[in-house]
Amino acid sequence: MTLVVQKFGGTSVGTPERIRAVANRIADTRRHGTSLVVVVSAMGHTTDELIELAHQVSKHPTHREMDMLLTTGERISMALLSMALTDLGVPALSLTGSQSGIITDSSHRRARIRRILGDRIRAALSEGMVPIIAGFQGVSENKEITTLGRGGSDTTAVALAAALEADYCDIFTDVDGVFSADPRMVPNAKFWRKIPHDLMVEMAIRGAGVLHPRSVELAKQFGVRVRVRNSLNESEGTIVVAVDQCKSSAGMEEFGVTGVSADRSRMLLTVHLSRSTVLGALWDRASRSHLSIVSPMFSNGTVQLFVERDSEDEWKRHLEELSFLGFVNAYEMDPRSVPVSVIGDRFAQDGSAIYEVVETLSQNQIPVLLGAASSLAITVAVSVDHVEEAVKALHDVFFKKV
Amino acid sequence: MTLVVQKFGGTSVGTPERIRAVANRIADTRRHGTSLVVVVSAMGHTTDELIELAHQVSKHPTHREMDMLLTTGERISMALLSMALTDLGVPALSLTGSQSGIITDSSHRRARIRRILGDRIRAALSEGMVPIIAGFQGVSENKEITTLGRGGSDTTAVALAAALEADYCDIFTDVDGVFSADPRMVPNAKFWRKIPHDLMVEMAIRGAGVLHPRSVELAKQFGVRVRVRNSLNESEGTIVVAVDQCKSSAGMEEFGVTGVSADRSRMLLTVHLSRSTVLGALWDRASRSHLSIVSPMFSNGTVQLFVERDSEDEWKRHLEELSFLGFVNAYEMDPRSVPVSVIGDRFAQDGSAIYEVVETLSQNQIPVLLGAASSLAITVAVSVDHVEEAVKALHDVFFKKV
Repeated sequence: MTLVVQKFGGTSVGTPERIRAVANRIADTRRHGTSLVVVVSAMGHTTDELIELAHQVSKHPTHREMDMLLTTGERISMALLSMALTDLGVPALSLTGSQSGIITDSSHRRARIRRILGDRIRAALSEGMVPIIAGFQGVSENKEITTLGRGGSDTTAVALAAALEADYCDIFTDVDGVFSADPRMVPNAKFWRKIPHDLMVEMAIRGAGVLHPRSVELAKQFGVRVRVRNSLNESEGTIVVAVDQCKSSAGMEEFGVTGVSADRSRMLLTVHLSRSTVLGALWDRASRSHLSIVSPMFSNGTVQLFVERDSEDEWKRHLEELSFLGFVNAYEMDPRSVPVSVIGDRFAQDGSAIYEVVETLSQNQIPVLLGAASSLAITVAVSVDHVEEAVKALHDVFFKKV
Repeated sequence: MTLVVQKFGGTSVGTPERIRAVANRIADTRRHGTSLVVVVSAMGHTTDELIELAHQVSKHPTHREMDMLLTTGERISMALLSMALTDLGVPALSLTGSQSGIITDSSHRRARIRRILGDRIRAALSEGMVPIIAGFQGVSENKEITTLGRGGSDTTAVALAAALEADYCDIFTDVDGVFSADPRMVPNAKFWRKIPHDLMVEMAIRGAGVLHPRSVELAKQFGVRVRVRNSLNESEGTIVVAVDQCKSSAGMEEFGVTGVSADRSRMLLTVHLSRSTVLGALWDRASRSHLSIVSPMFSNGTVQLFVERDSEDEWKRHLEELSFLGFVNAYEMDPRSVPVSVIGDRFAQDGSAIYEVVETLSQNQIPVLLGAASSLAITVAVSVDHVEEAVKALHDVFFKKV
């Protein structure tokens, strides 16, 4: 029998009506002979409300207690979904991260999954029940409740699909799947029925949204076939699969382009170090604080990288401290810069893709503030005023032939 | 029946004795019930000698005639190997690139494979013969003989394995397989029995040798299982496979390191442009001349990238012309710089790998001239005096736990 892990996010279970709609969908899928494991997020903005509540109670709530608090959000939605399913005559069993055996490291609020035991999930499946699993949470080796941080619920779903060797992992969202560019910016963006894991990782890292890079990395590693589907309709969505299952019609050795993305959630940070030997101090802080970094480059004592706008304060705190220690001479955050990327393959073998990018931007009088390329992505920083224009122009160039 | 494409390079077929040894090996493999398609390079230094000969005859030989000349090299080795096999009672048939239906674009001396027809290969196989195919060559749509340029024979073999849906593609070399570092530099380097395609691509791009990145890109795209084997012994070698067939013992979300490489064939080039808008002109020349580029970055009107030392003259010619046109203010080639890379995965999700790299170099008093990171590789430029020390120190850090 086909086994599918299905993840429903906060919006999909945001109201009692929507929870009942999800239950109906699950009941329907089961009638078609598919065995299901369901992963849910907390309802709507529950998590944000709980965080707000904590800050009203305490100035500096500990991460341990925050995890204890936040993990109740998924318990609520999973219990409610389980009730709705029982009403439909579908036997269901809600399980916390801990009950599911989702073992993580001990970093509260940003734990990483180490392995999944899953005994109770397997037992429930063998009894014909639908296990409803709390996303975003796990338990450390010393029995502390943890949360997974950003991209947590998607990561729970993919990790479960890997551990249970499920046929598919469905991630329900509010879009129809993966496009070659954001359809709101590029109306004729190409819809991808299939996309290879490694390019989906790059799309996610470069801000194409839809899936969190962390969950796609995991899917790639374990060969999990992820389907990105719209919870509001019955469309098949995009399937993320191994690269050799995505043969293109291009020539054997031609480079291919999968998408053009802009990541407005990031901006360019430039740091002038007092000496090269302190480069480690900067990375130490970034990695300890789990600050996400894209396209870092270092030259002549200057580091440039794209950081999340959300973490501006945290970066500033670190940079001020490093300045105080005499490690940093100066730093600039450029809130008007946005990374725009072209994602594809063979860029290291064929420089013509990079040429097309820089030439297209030049012809459209869009200044390139910064650029870097790997074998799978070409990223440039442009002014926020030029983002839409840049994405459109680049998409036109690379997808004109399609 | 198992079908294997086996490629033997110039050294393996360098003398009549070695050709007979290869024939014996092929006969032996066939006796074990394996169906074979063999790809050969020209004997030893034949290609270099033919190039030398051409330059003695003509100052500027055309690329078309060079291809006509050079393709005779593989004809010689394939005919000889076919004779040796016939003597052993193994029916064999030599086929040129054109006879094999290896269709390329029309760029002489650096053609890319578009597709493979392979009718005569299939016919020979069905008649129980061993087709011996000329590597490194093909034919364009307008029936001109082409050569594939660097990495050509490996690429022929992998492309054939993809087109024929072979079970394996064996690339015979003079090493036992793929290690976590060059065993000559790091005696305790870890031998990889299996390595995933995408990390092998990065290893190849970053100078780990053994396979040409171009052929690994192709293997990845088509899911070809490539075995890197030593032609001088019977060891099983390293197998390059899909990433989900290389599950590690690490935690689900931990970053992994596959290798540390130094690419002494490359050096750092810095180009100061007169204005950002001429960035395209530089890339245009690089891509038209098929100049290979690694880790390009652009910031504040300055481009930095690793170029092949071999192509120094060609780069200089382009840069002088661009200077004359007023596009380039200045440029520097630093022959004493060498890129050193750490290859692995999840680097974009976990900054601690980058931290380990910069901190390790700093603790060993090795100045980092330049650095860049993608999700699969961290590359730094160090002085040629520090290369070995850097590779050893980085390998120690990342492989101490293994």
